Amino acid sequence: MERKKITIVGVGLIGGSLALQLHEKKISSKLIGVETNEFHAQKALELELVDQILSLDNAIEQSDVIFLAVPVDSLVELLPKVLDKINNQVVIDLGSTKSQLVEAVKNHPKRGRYVSAHPMWGTEYNGPQAAVKGAFENVAVIICNSKDSDSDALEWTKKMFSKIRMRILEMDAEAHDLHAAYVSHISHITSFALANTVLEKEKEEEAIFELASAGFESTVRLAKSNPAMWVPIFKQNRDNVLDVLNEHITQLRKFKSCLEKENYEYLLELIVQANKIRGILK
Amino acid sequence: MERKKITIVGVGLIGGSLALQLHEKKISSKLIGVETNEFHAQKALELELVDQILSLDNAIEQSDVIFLAVPVDSLVELLPKVLDKINNQVVIDLGSTKSQLVEAVKNHPKRGRYVSAHPMWGTEYNGPQAAVKGAFENVAVIICNSKDSDSDALEWTKKMFSKIRMRILEMDAEAHDLHAAYVSHISHITSFALANTVLEKEKEEEAIFELASAGFESTVRLAKSNPAMWVPIFKQNRDNVLDVLNEHITQLRKFKSCLEKENYEYLLELIVQANKIRGILK
Repeated sequence: MERKKITIVGVGLIGGSLALQLHEKKISSKLIGVETNEFHAQKALELELVDQILSLDNAIEQSDVIFLAVPVDSLVELLPKVLDKINNQVVIDLGSTKSQLVEAVKNHPKRGRYVSAHPMWGTEYNGPQAAVKGAFENVAVIICNSKDSDSDALEWTKKMFSKIRMRILEMDAEAHDLHAAYVSHISHITSFALANTVLEKEKEEEAIFELASAGFESTVRLAKSNPAMWVPIFKQNRDNVLDVLNEHITQLRKFKSCLEKENYEYLLELIVQANKIRGILK
Repeated sequence: MERKKITIVGVGLIGGSLALQLHEKKISSKLIGVETNEFHAQKALELELVDQILSLDNAIEQSDVIFLAVPVDSLVELLPKVLDKINNQVVIDLGSTKSQLVEAVKNHPKRGRYVSAHPMWGTEYNGPQAAVKGAFENVAVIICNSKDSDSDALEWTKKMFSKIRMRILEMDAEAHDLHAAYVSHISHITSFALANTVLEKEKEEEAIFELASAGFESTVRLAKSNPAMWVPIFKQNRDNVLDVLNEHITQLRKFKSCLEKENYEYLLELIVQANKIRGILK
């Protein structure tokens, strides 16, 4: 695979982790960062995630490939502008929601140069200092509406993801957003709500800190996640997230009803049912 | 610390993990298991968690200390029987709920020999094969109603927990059960309910498996937990769990309302509030 000059717009958790992979797998000959946050720009250079920081226009001019790794509300603004500016470069976004984004550039004359991708990876931390080496290895990446991408752009993107050892899946943007609501977005809502539940009731915060078990930390971990990333995701995927959230509240009410009515046989059934997740996850 | 002959009733996840610690820290001169599940008894011997399996009566007769590590519904039956049988041995339970248990032996003539303890550790797996080496290190253990224990029994118990490097906290059984509802029990209910949400809606199970991110696995991990352990916990701690569950549903409804009304400012506030969990957990 010939090395490319690559720009990453947004050198945070995702962009920074990708930069590490592109460098390690010798996919990039040069890594350029575009970063409006001064502190993040400085950190990205210090941590050697990118070789230099440039303005968007300069970066695009010097690059073969441009990755967009900014929050999804910014993506919807940024992507058409980037497509306006490119010649024949490949543009790949890494956002967590897809329908509004592909819709926004559906009729753009450069639509073919764009590949819509979502690596199913993240942590509750953010910024370049949160970048993780080897982050994407053996993780799924979903490519959406690939038939709308030029075949050379799509082919390079797939080769690149394969080389950083991601498992490539393809689906249309609408299917992606529905699945993402189930396997990612709802987990964040439950975790945020669980944190607020505990913070609301447990005024003796010291007690939580002292007692918190691994189980609690595991379910509440995502509640540390960055609102600047997550509010736009929930906004763009509102309908799907609302459907799943309604279903989740219904499921919680079943547990509540079991306890209220002291129906422990049904409570057992609900838990046995939940255990089936064993067969789906490892 | 003089080595003791120690019995563990219930050589599963908790009993088995404790056995490994007692052996490693040279607290036990002999480890006896009492285990009604034939398969678990066999496994516990194979894995060398205990030196031998005996009947409850024989085990008690030969021991200085008896740990009870069975589900909390069995504990309420078992603890008074064990106290009936002992002379001067120390009896320690490791159950996840405490109020009903201490109530059940409140007036027992041997109450002083009993120490009520809850190590804040567990995994979603069960049985002796799930035992983990070093499991309890740097984990909190709560000792309840310690004033009702004889001072020698309490002192030995504390020394033992310190030697396996647990952080000892003391509180009364009622406070324990309230805190446990917040920092442990509700996490399990949300996780069970989340698993059921996804299983209900996502009929294409293959898609979940393929897409499931680390975030999803983290929040749904506890849904693999053993119903035989958890139904009795929810039953014994019903009132506290119901209170927390009601609060949790209220918190989820706030997220729902934000999305329904497209009130993204308040959604941001809710997430910023949830982020405060950062200050409490590491």
